[in-house]
Amino acid sequence: MIEAGERCALVVAALVDSRLNAFICSASTEVLLLTGYWPVMSASIAIHTADGEIRLIIPEDEVELAERTSSAKLIAYRPAGLDTLQSPLERLRAPLQGALEELGLLEGTIGLQLGEGVQPSTYAVSYQFRSSLPELLGQLMRHGNFKSCDGLLDSLKAVLTAGELAILENACLVAAAAFARAETVITAGLRETDVAAAVQSAFDTAPLARHFERSYGYFFCMSGPNSAKAAAAFARTRDRKLETGELVMIHCNTCADGYWTDITRTYTVGAPSGRQAEMRKAIMQARAAGLDAIRPGVAGCDVDRAVRDVMKEHGLGEAFKHAAGHGVGFAAANPNGIPRIHSLSHDVLKAGMTFNLEPAAYFDGYGGIRHCDVVAVTEDGVKVLTQF
Amino acid sequence: MIEAGERCALVVAALVDSRLNAFICSASTEVLLLTGYWPVMSASIAIHTADGEIRLIIPEDEVELAERTSSAKLIAYRPAGLDTLQSPLERLRAPLQGALEELGLLEGTIGLQLGEGVQPSTYAVSYQFRSSLPELLGQLMRHGNFKSCDGLLDSLKAVLTAGELAILENACLVAAAAFARAETVITAGLRETDVAAAVQSAFDTAPLARHFERSYGYFFCMSGPNSAKAAAAFARTRDRKLETGELVMIHCNTCADGYWTDITRTYTVGAPSGRQAEMRKAIMQARAAGLDAIRPGVAGCDVDRAVRDVMKEHGLGEAFKHAAGHGVGFAAANPNGIPRIHSLSHDVLKAGMTFNLEPAAYFDGYGGIRHCDVVAVTEDGVKVLTQF
Repeated sequence: MIEAGERCALVVAALVDSRLNAFICSASTEVLLLTGYWPVMSASIAIHTADGEIRLIIPEDEVELAERTSSAKLIAYRPAGLDTLQSPLERLRAPLQGALEELGLLEGTIGLQLGEGVQPSTYAVSYQFRSSLPELLGQLMRHGNFKSCDGLLDSLKAVLTAGELAILENACLVAAAAFARAETVITAGLRETDVAAAVQSAFDTAPLARHFERSYGYFFCMSGPNSAKAAAAFARTRDRKLETGELVMIHCNTCADGYWTDITRTYTVGAPSGRQAEMRKAIMQARAAGLDAIRPGVAGCDVDRAVRDVMKEHGLGEAFKHAAGHGVGFAAANPNGIPRIHSLSHDVLKAGMTFNLEPAAYFDGYGGIRHCDVVAVTEDGVKVLTQF
Repeated sequence: MIEAGERCALVVAALVDSRLNAFICSASTEVLLLTGYWPVMSASIAIHTADGEIRLIIPEDEVELAERTSSAKLIAYRPAGLDTLQSPLERLRAPLQGALEELGLLEGTIGLQLGEGVQPSTYAVSYQFRSSLPELLGQLMRHGNFKSCDGLLDSLKAVLTAGELAILENACLVAAAAFARAETVITAGLRETDVAAAVQSAFDTAPLARHFERSYGYFFCMSGPNSAKAAAAFARTRDRKLETGELVMIHCNTCADGYWTDITRTYTVGAPSGRQAEMRKAIMQARAAGLDAIRPGVAGCDVDRAVRDVMKEHGLGEAFKHAAGHGVGFAAANPNGIPRIHSLSHDVLKAGMTFNLEPAAYFDGYGGIRHCDVVAVTEDGVKVLTQF
């Protein structure tokens, strides 16, 4: 369990500054932010008051997990059972009302998530309360005011506490095991599905994963021309066979108890060609320039420019089709994760921010190279969490 | 691409019956229902009118995938780009407005999903528009009426067309490859993580998977006392080592282009004990009784009773801790998926309904056996889609 005091103080300060009495959130990422617990079925509700009181209303079969990672006061409920066909929200109406009464929240101003956003996957399925949660809160808190607080929550998620950062660092180390496997397994004649499965298996059985309650991840292999398609918002493993001399991109998003990585490495089947070596050299120089630019006070656009300028110098400006990075940690694979390392972004870097740095070059029909690291802003520079 | 006419006719009939001009949905399952396309990033919007017009507004990097599975008219947009920091919903405002104008939907009554529900995972992350989509629609359709239509959509999802059912059948066959692997890999001394990884790998590399654009799945291994914990709403693989004589449960939810399976088989490490053999015998008899009870016109409670009565006869009533099944197909791992095979459920079975049948017995501290099949209601009985 991570020390919760630092996060609690940050949340309290945000609530007080915004004249809010509490946050009430059901999206998994925000439940993690407010309580330290990463829900499984996403049918949980976190309440965090401006007095520093934290309640977590969760399915009873998640209590065992939640006790190990959260110091919030847990309120268990049964979302389903042999004796009822009610829905989860109907089932948690009474415990929610009880918590609101206990915390003096029958009136006041409450911050909710009402706007659009990205949520990482917690399980094969996840619960979404949609408009029914604000509606229920409106019934329970007849004198309550509700404010959309997505931006405020996004800014809180952008800066990790020391405890949260330590988990993210270890999450990156678990993923390292998979990339070590990729180096040895990539062989002409194998299918992308074979390579992805081997790498996934190395991750799933990595001994370091045992340090977490839940360690899981999504690995993708894209070879030859398919590696150029990795410029898309999503990755995709196909059944294409690898051929000698081709580029092979391995990409992952992995999760350790709710903290997410975003990592890409690119290999060649056999020896790299001159063109591939040139592309890689440019990308690694762009990476170095980006890392050099990262420190507190610098804007996202400055880091993007440092990376993009090197790519342009190598004639790869057009081939570098996306922004240089985006927030990672509470965020996963979200181009709008704060800080946005984008040419138009004035997001200012602060110590504790974590994001990916992903210089890349993609040529349709040929292939692509991306080198995507997870980095953390330190007091005076940057730390690369994916040193492999 | 499946033949879309049958589904379109059903949706049109539902809209006309409910005096709705259109459904507008962004949740992935409902986008699949209305258009035949299973979104990756979930930043898509499906519009299906009572005239049978279908529009799918999707990220441009998903067009290639969507063209292969949907006959809807596609409207591509760019959720992000080098030239903008707008959000996906801001980016699709203009295309959405254009589609509403073209379809004559600036006024009228629109069915939306506003209530709570389960969504299966489409990718490592998924987009959620939350309240911002109804809000935007309210701005664009100043004379529109919006109705919460979750129940109507649930009833449409409960009955599969012949084309949809064929995909689900094949999805079950892909999963069969993984269970064949489970039989050979389970050995004393291996960890649950090792077994789960081996089974997962067999699934990920199954040749049959190549028939789908996207085939992925979640496999879990629970051994000894951990198999008793599988009575929870979710499964979980831990690092526990398998021991001779123990029960080992393999559970999965797998997806083939958006259609989901829910399958469990239970093995023993070495020869089963007398107690294990008794449990298994009871469960297989309960399964047979359940299958016998399934036909059009029968209520969910009747099937649950048929299964539960056999479990009780064997003294396993208390050990059978959950309902006998729930809708599977468009639904995955959702206890509220229609038809609910639950003692209180008056959901009436119809031909084309698909659900799981999952007789089980769990003993805390000892272990559990579950045999979970996916079945389809036929014109005169039942077809088991997981004949392995």
